[in-house]
Amino acid sequence: MQSDLGGVGKSSVSVNLALALSRLNNQVGILDADIFGPSLPTLLNLRNHKATTTATNLIEPLINFNLKCMSIAFLTKSDGAIVWRGLMVMQAIEKLLRQVAWSPLDYLIIDLPPGTGDIQLSIAQLVPLSGVIMVTTPQELALIDVRKAIEMFRLVNVPILGIVENFSTYFCQKCGHEEKIFGENGAQLLSNEFHLNILETLPIDTQFRQACDQGRPIMQQNETILCSKFNNLAKQINEQMHKNKTTTT
Amino acid sequence: MQSDLGGVGKSSVSVNLALALSRLNNQVGILDADIFGPSLPTLLNLRNHKATTTATNLIEPLINFNLKCMSIAFLTKSDGAIVWRGLMVMQAIEKLLRQVAWSPLDYLIIDLPPGTGDIQLSIAQLVPLSGVIMVTTPQELALIDVRKAIEMFRLVNVPILGIVENFSTYFCQKCGHEEKIFGENGAQLLSNEFHLNILETLPIDTQFRQACDQGRPIMQQNETILCSKFNNLAKQINEQMHKNKTTTT
Repeated sequence: MQSDLGGVGKSSVSVNLALALSRLNNQVGILDADIFGPSLPTLLNLRNHKATTTATNLIEPLINFNLKCMSIAFLTKSDGAIVWRGLMVMQAIEKLLRQVAWSPLDYLIIDLPPGTGDIQLSIAQLVPLSGVIMVTTPQELALIDVRKAIEMFRLVNVPILGIVENFSTYFCQKCGHEEKIFGENGAQLLSNEFHLNILETLPIDTQFRQACDQGRPIMQQNETILCSKFNNLAKQINEQMHKNKTTTT
Repeated sequence: MQSDLGGVGKSSVSVNLALALSRLNNQVGILDADIFGPSLPTLLNLRNHKATTTATNLIEPLINFNLKCMSIAFLTKSDGAIVWRGLMVMQAIEKLLRQVAWSPLDYLIIDLPPGTGDIQLSIAQLVPLSGVIMVTTPQELALIDVRKAIEMFRLVNVPILGIVENFSTYFCQKCGHEEKIFGENGAQLLSNEFHLNILETLPIDTQFRQACDQGRPIMQQNETILCSKFNNLAKQINEQMHKNKTTTT
């Protein structure tokens, strides 16, 4: 479950974290809570797929790569723009959370839209979130939104599990020169400011970007450094969750 | 005036387009319509500045780099998270549009938040927009949101002036190797699909990113290729607007 501003690769991180958690023998679902610009169908190669209804009148999540997947795109007829006011959006979100045959699940990863608006608030109020992961780039302009999001989640008592820094660095494919295209130390600054752990830092990776655009998640392909980073991220989340379970029961 | 998903450098493009239009002897205002993550104060070096009220009870826009600037950040007391429901957001937007001493102006650039939600809709209904510029990266995942936005603006009859492709390409600072980090032909695809002009393509530029983060807009610095691209963008917008004026009066 995670949040921040858009364009920082949040959805791509969500999907590959879900796959890494699934590898650790968890039953994992992923919910695309971006009503206006759903990207899950592209990322999980489920474009133009539509959901069906179960005998008990629940919506059946689509299954691909061993993940239960749900997005507003699986419920709407066309690919057209969704022009909805706040209230309709809230109803859609509630439907995606409550009227989908999710269970049994160990994890439901919710890929939140950018910002700290109605959708984020409603989800925090509708379901008891175990935690939220903040995804950011190192850039100062990105940190502005993440700071707001951290404050909002603290206000509504959702635990923040830590920070993932995406687009941390770039290595030239020809000469190997490293360049911090989007700046540096962004996650470190946030970590110091809010006393949060940095869970992982992910480089800019053209293959990763292509895999995302083509619906072939890297966690389903050959082992790369990026895969081991997602495995590490999943391991930390798993440990945090099991620790929480032990201390609360 | 423009729109798309976040993280694609939309605010940075807005600010530098505003400066380029100002260079062409226009009176230019810029409104940061992102209530939840305002970035204008950072981009225009106006962090921690607050707005005052005029004798006629209007809010005085802040002025820097010859631009009239307004953002929710100039009106709120702290830097904390804004946790508002849709209706409050709409009221804030209306205030920023109607209760600010904007005039006289040739252009009001509105930097929209990501998505196609209440804010975008309300602005389209509150004021007669002369046009909207779509900013996107070449990446398929970014195009999803832009398609939705184009459809929404067409639905509410706002003319789309064209597309700006940001993060088009990257040149290694050491060996000069060119890499299409975020893919290619994104703007071209949209242009074909929706019969829209590509107004400009902007490369990934570390100096540009730094200048944005530090509130020193590149249009206020030495002439670079990027500056000439913003000048060209402004020239096209200016021409389109004057043509429209001539044909409608």
